[in-house]
Amino acid sequence: MASLTFQQNFKLGILGGGQLGRMLIQSGIDFNIPFTVLDPDENAPCAGITEFHHGKLTDYDTVMNFGKDCDIITIEIENVNTPALKALVKQGKKVFPQPEVIEIIQDKRIQKQFYKDQNIPTADFILTDTAAAVQAHANFLPAVNKLGKEGYDGRGVQILRTAADLAKAFEAPSLLEKLIDFEKEISVIVARNEKGEIKTFPVVEMVFHPVHNLVEYLFAPAEISPDVAEEADRIARQIIASLNMVGLLAVEMFVTKDGKVLVNEIAPRPHNSGHQTIEANGTSQYEQHLRAILNLPLGDTAMIIPGAMVNLLGEDGFAGAARYEGFEEVIAISGVHVHLYGKKFTKPFRKMGHVTIVDRDINSLKEKVALVKKTLKVIS
Amino acid sequence: MASLTFQQNFKLGILGGGQLGRMLIQSGIDFNIPFTVLDPDENAPCAGITEFHHGKLTDYDTVMNFGKDCDIITIEIENVNTPALKALVKQGKKVFPQPEVIEIIQDKRIQKQFYKDQNIPTADFILTDTAAAVQAHANFLPAVNKLGKEGYDGRGVQILRTAADLAKAFEAPSLLEKLIDFEKEISVIVARNEKGEIKTFPVVEMVFHPVHNLVEYLFAPAEISPDVAEEADRIARQIIASLNMVGLLAVEMFVTKDGKVLVNEIAPRPHNSGHQTIEANGTSQYEQHLRAILNLPLGDTAMIIPGAMVNLLGEDGFAGAARYEGFEEVIAISGVHVHLYGKKFTKPFRKMGHVTIVDRDINSLKEKVALVKKTLKVIS
Repeated sequence: MASLTFQQNFKLGILGGGQLGRMLIQSGIDFNIPFTVLDPDENAPCAGITEFHHGKLTDYDTVMNFGKDCDIITIEIENVNTPALKALVKQGKKVFPQPEVIEIIQDKRIQKQFYKDQNIPTADFILTDTAAAVQAHANFLPAVNKLGKEGYDGRGVQILRTAADLAKAFEAPSLLEKLIDFEKEISVIVARNEKGEIKTFPVVEMVFHPVHNLVEYLFAPAEISPDVAEEADRIARQIIASLNMVGLLAVEMFVTKDGKVLVNEIAPRPHNSGHQTIEANGTSQYEQHLRAILNLPLGDTAMIIPGAMVNLLGEDGFAGAARYEGFEEVIAISGVHVHLYGKKFTKPFRKMGHVTIVDRDINSLKEKVALVKKTLKVIS
Repeated sequence: MASLTFQQNFKLGILGGGQLGRMLIQSGIDFNIPFTVLDPDENAPCAGITEFHHGKLTDYDTVMNFGKDCDIITIEIENVNTPALKALVKQGKKVFPQPEVIEIIQDKRIQKQFYKDQNIPTADFILTDTAAAVQAHANFLPAVNKLGKEGYDGRGVQILRTAADLAKAFEAPSLLEKLIDFEKEISVIVARNEKGEIKTFPVVEMVFHPVHNLVEYLFAPAEISPDVAEEADRIARQIIASLNMVGLLAVEMFVTKDGKVLVNEIAPRPHNSGHQTIEANGTSQYEQHLRAILNLPLGDTAMIIPGAMVNLLGEDGFAGAARYEGFEEVIAISGVHVHLYGKKFTKPFRKMGHVTIVDRDINSLKEKVALVKKTLKVIS
């Protein structure tokens, strides 16, 4: 039985040593899981809290060499060498999420085609290989032009609103997706273990700034109808089951103004939209990921207390050794939990940490969010 | 300001690398605190999750050498070399709890005298230096005979019920304390930072087995009257203020059958009776300890959900590489949080971990406690 063996003579390898890996390791201390991490940055957030190897995640030999000492291998970032992971599976290693799943998600074109094939609701799209092919679809605008591969955190994604924008179309395999005039953006995190057990977390809502139209904070419980919540939950379960995936999957969705739920993107790992589960839910997304890949029973995901999550980004105009202005003020507020990622250097908009705020009173919770956002700054 | 500096070019040293240190480090990841640990056992629970030094905590030179690279030094066990800590303070290091406080608590005779001098309610006692001195007080029985120094976890403590028991009296500096026929045993954890801010956690109750008269589990909220709760809280605050202590202090108390509250023992560090604060309270005892010694604002201690804590001890009759029987069964129960301490080898009654169980329904909570105790076993 896995439960009796994984605390002894066992190693769980993580490809990527960023904040998601860091919180995974922090959680895994409870189950006494021995970790080893591979990351190209020797000062990555995971360095110093576990066995750490320095190397490129996209290099076949580096990943093979790292994997040979592991019993199970997982990821905290999708941009990894999947041929090496496939070869490790052939050697008898367990790799979760499976390399084939990672490959579907690495390429937004394959990902979209997968939704279509599986009848998973998503925005209409056209696959294009050249800028000219995009430009031939002026009638499809407004649309989002996304590079198939290696887009990340906003890079490789652009909105084409009018024919005038067509000049900047990607000259590479990409897709053109109908721009959704959405009412809300929501997310459901779902886990599945090898036995096939599936559990979802309650729906999280991305709350937008009323003026700037940027995500201001994440909030659970999402302020949506029971029907929308049920449909979002159903879609998340359908995707992880169709992928036959083992691990944790974040499913980001749009709720349209007429109440439809459409899949936007998925990520096969712990996710920004699940940070608040550490404090606000019966099981955190990190422990749930570990339970899933170790084939343990999945944990209870019920919300214990309403929670909001604010990303702590490097302040614009500052670069250098990070300092946290307002830290004392915000940790004095009840229900405020600051998580710093251990990055030595800040730069504008770098993810340096996050803050979870929990409060039984929704109005008080939203006031605290505003106060935290106003008070806590990462400067140099 | 400490808040702006402790995440860079800073080191917090912990004397002791056991489970309390391990959970302190796990908590400190959130504030990005760089730790270093000293422990005589190179396989101690803290090894592998932080910088680790192997050496004796009671050796002057070892502690001096360890301390020289630290900015703040704390403890997770009382049996440390305090002359070295005093010398480190003279060199400008911060040591919390202060060495003088550790010395009071290291010697149960000085500790008792301190309560008496400060008018802190505690059981009557007599100081004795020899077995003969104990034996001269047959009229004081039933009593507890405690060695002044180096008693730990039951060692150095014995009950003398009748004159026949006097033969085993300690031939060493000890104390003879009136045996309290208590109604309940309770604990309050209190923290104080350098600014003098003091916060207490809600009272925790040690629940005894109705037949075996052993602590079965810990439970919060304690089932006591508001008057008793208030008096326990007042006493905890009085002690930490009288000691002028910086850090976390666990105050174990008896509630007598006539409703009086008497101090039993204190520990100047995170404590077994505070483990459940990780899941059940607004701030965990570990983060509170860090906040106190870093002179940060103390966190909100309010209970979020009722919780119980069961120690996970090595099963009698088993010694060797630890295995956790029933692990899968118990983690499948909602509200059950298993914390393993990373000790490779089990032996009878060794503290191998703990389980916190949270549940809004007190009856359901107590049923789950019974189920966890029956199901989860540490064997080899």
